[in-house]
Amino acid sequence: MPEIRQNRATKEWVIIAAERAKRPGDFNPKEEKKILPKFDRDCPFCPGNEHKTPPELFSYRRAGTERDKPDWWIRVIPNKFPALIPEVELGRVSERFFSKMKGYGRHEVIIESPEHNLSLGNMSLKQVEEVCLIYRERYIELSAEKNIKTIIIFRNHGLGAGTSLLHPHSQLIALPLVPTHIRHLLEEATRYYDDHVFCVFCDMVKEELEFKKRVLLETESFVAFHPFASKVPFETWIVPKVHNAGFGNISVDEAKGLAFVLREILGRLYSKLSDPDYNLVLNTAPISDSSEDFYHWYIQILPRLTTPAGFELGSGVYINTALPEETAKFLSS
Amino acid sequence: MPEIRQNRATKEWVIIAAERAKRPGDFNPKEEKKILPKFDRDCPFCPGNEHKTPPELFSYRRAGTERDKPDWWIRVIPNKFPALIPEVELGRVSERFFSKMKGYGRHEVIIESPEHNLSLGNMSLKQVEEVCLIYRERYIELSAEKNIKTIIIFRNHGLGAGTSLLHPHSQLIALPLVPTHIRHLLEEATRYYDDHVFCVFCDMVKEELEFKKRVLLETESFVAFHPFASKVPFETWIVPKVHNAGFGNISVDEAKGLAFVLREILGRLYSKLSDPDYNLVLNTAPISDSSEDFYHWYIQILPRLTTPAGFELGSGVYINTALPEETAKFLSS
Repeated sequence: MPEIRQNRATKEWVIIAAERAKRPGDFNPKEEKKILPKFDRDCPFCPGNEHKTPPELFSYRRAGTERDKPDWWIRVIPNKFPALIPEVELGRVSERFFSKMKGYGRHEVIIESPEHNLSLGNMSLKQVEEVCLIYRERYIELSAEKNIKTIIIFRNHGLGAGTSLLHPHSQLIALPLVPTHIRHLLEEATRYYDDHVFCVFCDMVKEELEFKKRVLLETESFVAFHPFASKVPFETWIVPKVHNAGFGNISVDEAKGLAFVLREILGRLYSKLSDPDYNLVLNTAPISDSSEDFYHWYIQILPRLTTPAGFELGSGVYINTALPEETAKFLSS
Repeated sequence: MPEIRQNRATKEWVIIAAERAKRPGDFNPKEEKKILPKFDRDCPFCPGNEHKTPPELFSYRRAGTERDKPDWWIRVIPNKFPALIPEVELGRVSERFFSKMKGYGRHEVIIESPEHNLSLGNMSLKQVEEVCLIYRERYIELSAEKNIKTIIIFRNHGLGAGTSLLHPHSQLIALPLVPTHIRHLLEEATRYYDDHVFCVFCDMVKEELEFKKRVLLETESFVAFHPFASKVPFETWIVPKVHNAGFGNISVDEAKGLAFVLREILGRLYSKLSDPDYNLVLNTAPISDSSEDFYHWYIQILPRLTTPAGFELGSGVYINTALPEETAKFLSS
């Protein structure tokens, strides 16, 4: 029998379509992925091709080596085809009935490794720690910019997840506004806080740890689980156990702890589902709300094993063909 | 220079990424689509295979012919793998911290033609009129069911748009709730109404007709345009010119007028962009709000020419690589 489940934090409904339900292992794709080389001379993110990207903003590199030359292990660059740029004035412009803003903001690329064929699930722990530390540093640096209101860090893995370059990288977009979607999430979380005087994400973490069946991993600082109302098969949330609305408040030790969980979870997806395409998003409060009691940052991983279609676009309700209790078990065994 | 534009009705922001912008013609795919046969013996929606689907709910068929036999020209059936089913009781069930409902609802398939290789853009006008009349009939019939609160009619065209069966068909899902996403849209429209004592969609239609540059087609009852804040390249809205919140209020003549516009617009997409994959959604007020002053039904067509990725999923903000003024011109020439 199908079920309609509600995510208590976002208030979004999903349909768990039991009639269409698949066993977790059935999502393992039949076709093998193309094996990538360790180095691709045509890839602008591979070492030796630094001149093919805009000048680097930041890097971790061997002492004494030059900027925009090899011998780095992480490199942050502006996106060559940026969605937003810092070189414009801020301000709303009226265009007759409508309004718009100039495209002020930042769009950066974090090249996660010199090796073309690695991914967060199979890099060394040390390397994933460096990636999480870079997330933290870029987030903190851009938070201090006067007109930046929201920062979205994300990762598109695989062609089906919308990436055009397969070399391992994350992206960061800093926006001069709070998106409507995020404003609605804040409103829902505020309403829960009004009713319970407690953060809904903190309560959810407690509940998931007690129920256990959707939990993949618990560490000192984090818990990873498949949410009760997962939108897509194998959707995974990684949530800090201690209340914290804004990602910018994360400590160095916590960032390292996050790296451990991220690598472990993405490694399981990699090995048990044959390296599926996925999107990863770091959800966090807008900068001005980063110390609030009612919101909580977390990482959301959305594998691209199914295709959301017209119904999802029109209603915002997802039809999920897997049970989160079963997918969590599959990834825990 | 990139722009950040806001849809005044939904309040959603989009980034028009001029640095990445393409000419409208560049979205024409390089690869040709596979040509489909007029009849496919393995297709459960083709005539002669009626026994492979659940028994029909309704059909337009030659007088004197039998149900679930050939000689129909439109056929409505329950989805064989329904997301929701009518044979359960309604009611919220608490599952510890979370809540869920049994999967009560309806999930129907409208087979739009006996011919396997047709689509709404290249069928006869008469046939598309019949499709729109069926939309109307099914909508009105299901609206009268006691526990149905929202009805979503949608169409997934092409494998990239999430369909598994290429035979021309639409779907209808009737929900026992108002999705959070739609509730938020209603709230935004209500706020506009509070400020202006006028429907924001009516105002938008007036503005687009006056500005002209994003309009594809205007008829007695409808206007089709590429919205100021289009989320994806070639996003198209078809909006009734006379205020009407709920689709169920559409007259027979209006349904026929809609068919004309739908066929014309989808025909242009078909010929000018080589039959692109797309999702089509009929956005309408929930049944209880179908006579409200502040909302307005419309059809939204979202071609799948680009892949929304992590940023879109996390922020709800789309990055559009085409200018709606240019795509509208391209489809109007």
